[in-house]
Amino acid sequence: MKNILSPADFRHKVEIRVRTWEVDWERVVHNSNFLRYMEIGRFEYKRNLESSLNACGSSPDGLKVFVVHNSVDYLAFAKFDDVLNIYTRIAWIKNSSFCFEHIIEQSATGNMIATGKGILVNVNPLTNLPEKLHEKFSESVIAYDKNVVLLSDKSKA
Amino acid sequence: MKNILSPADFRHKVEIRVRTWEVDWERVVHNSNFLRYMEIGRFEYKRNLESSLNACGSSPDGLKVFVVHNSVDYLAFAKFDDVLNIYTRIAWIKNSSFCFEHIIEQSATGNMIATGKGILVNVNPLTNLPEKLHEKFSESVIAYDKNVVLLSDKSKA
Amino acid sequence: MKNILSPADFRHKVEIRVRTWEVDWERVVHNSNFLRYMEIGRFEYKRNLESSLNACGSSPDGLKVFVVHNSVDYLAFAKFDDVLNIYTRIAWIKNSSFCFEHIIEQSATGNMIATGKGILVNVNPLTNLPEKLHEKFSESVIAYDKNVVLLSDKSKA
Amino acid sequence: MKNILSPADFRHKVEIRVRTWEVDWERVVHNSNFLRYMEIGRFEYKRNLESSLNACGSSPDGLKVFVVHNSVDYLAFAKFDDVLNIYTRIAWIKNSSFCFEHIIEQSATGNMIATGKGILVNVNPLTNLPEKLHEKFSESVIAYDKNVVLLSDKSKA
Repeated sequence: MKNILSPADFRHKVEIRVRTWEVDWERVVHNSNFLRYMEIGRFEYKRNLESSLNACGSSPDGLKVFVVHNSVDYLAFAKFDDVLNIYTRIAWIKNSSFCFEHIIEQSATGNMIATGKGILVNVNPLTNLPEKLHEKFSESVIAYDKNVVLLSDKSKA
Repeated sequence: MKNILSPADFRHKVEIRVRTWEVDWERVVHNSNFLRYMEIGRFEYKRNLESSLNACGSSPDGLKVFVVHNSVDYLAFAKFDDVLNIYTRIAWIKNSSFCFEHIIEQSATGNMIATGKGILVNVNPLTNLPEKLHEKFSESVIAYDKNVVLLSDKSKA
Repeated sequence: MKNILSPADFRHKVEIRVRTWEVDWERVVHNSNFLRYMEIGRFEYKRNLESSLNACGSSPDGLKVFVVHNSVDYLAFAKFDDVLNIYTRIAWIKNSSFCFEHIIEQSATGNMIATGKGILVNVNPLTNLPEKLHEKFSESVIAYDKNVVLLSDKSKA
Repeated sequence: MKNILSPADFRHKVEIRVRTWEVDWERVVHNSNFLRYMEIGRFEYKRNLESSLNACGSSPDGLKVFVVHNSVDYLAFAKFDDVLNIYTRIAWIKNSSFCFEHIIEQSATGNMIATGKGILVNVNPLTNLPEKLHEKFSESVIAYDKNVVLLSDKSKA
């Protein structure tokens, strides 16, 4: 059975408003824009994390990451001027990679519009080769989000 | 083992050129734009199909389809002014849905930049509810692309 | 002498944050995106106006407008993650057309990034031909923005 | 009297096809995308110029330019899947700046959709300050486009 996500599983939320140019010839948000909404969620999630890091006295994380996978399941339409809630969490962390999960819902109705996920790989800033994630990163994610799963390298994901 | 796609598996190809606004703050094509490139492939694939339909004397297909899923695996960077080959095929057809598969490669080098897929559902133009695909559609796809797989409703996909 | 705009001339302001895909191959906001930022200003200006209309008991304005002209003067760069202030006002109203003016400034520094304007024409919703603006529209703009200029049809603009 | 442009005044033309995501909530090309179409014209104009430069044995021009002004006059709508002709020319060259002019027309009908222009300034690659344009640039533009006007610094433009 597929794992069904619910907003209750998420601690981080940002709101965006659908703009005229994000709506396509069928008068609904173009499918590609959901990847952009999800990225807004990721940056604000990370911003939030860093500020909590700063509150603990540690420095910004200095991550350089590549997106290696993105997927979206479209459940309903979003329309011009809709306010959308973008929920973001980190579902799992492995040695050098981690996975964002998202729900996008229509704010006015609570209708789920889409779910999605993205897998990112931490790389060495100079060589661009995969590199073990800093422990500080994992620690700050775990501190923020109790449900994150730590996967060993041998696990498949 | 994962199914590895190769350009040799595809009959349909379109070329696009990367534009300045498609490149992001890291000077590579933004991840969301690959869904747009894939859609160019889908429309040109369908245009190509319809013209062969017209050659057989039949009318345009009148499909109304919804995208219900998209995914992209990012393998390498594409940069400003790169010419990219977008390969498109229909991998399978079910009762009311079908699946596009894509390879995106850098034209100059033949390097594979990304692979992706999208699942679309045929709907009734008035009710927006899933509806059996016209046989003409399946026939024209099969005539164009020998490798398309016809799935029964009971198969999982 | 050219008329120099200043934020002090504006009553309406919205904030936006620059996103990764809005930055181009030169790592600055792509020139086309300023038209999008200006449009955010226009919609929020109009939303603000309508709510004040509603407070007066009148109905939404039912305007159908076409953009017939846009221009931007670029003064400085905006970069990823910058918060920008979009100032919007209606500079003049004629029989069937009116003109938005904008300043875009970097919130953190107050540096002026761009100025711009757009001319819109009110049209009949059915024929799409220019049509006299409702007096309610002019009245609500004047009530909000003391400096708007009413131009007669004979004036050139 | 306003100067009316005609395709006959232009030597350079590129074709683009309107894509689904370029069409907005009103089912016409979003006003911001015309700046993108014009930029496609500019890059292809410049590419064309450089190849003629190369044919003369000279090196690429090494220009670093900033866009300081853009404007568009919208005359008619462009719709999804329209093929558009983007005409581009350099109208004038001054000491450190030059001006592109454009016509955008619907290919199938020859209807004029928009006209536009952009002013660009040549800058020193290190200091980003305005710098005299290379003579090779002016020469190659004049060789390509007989009608380009050379303006002295004192002329207003």
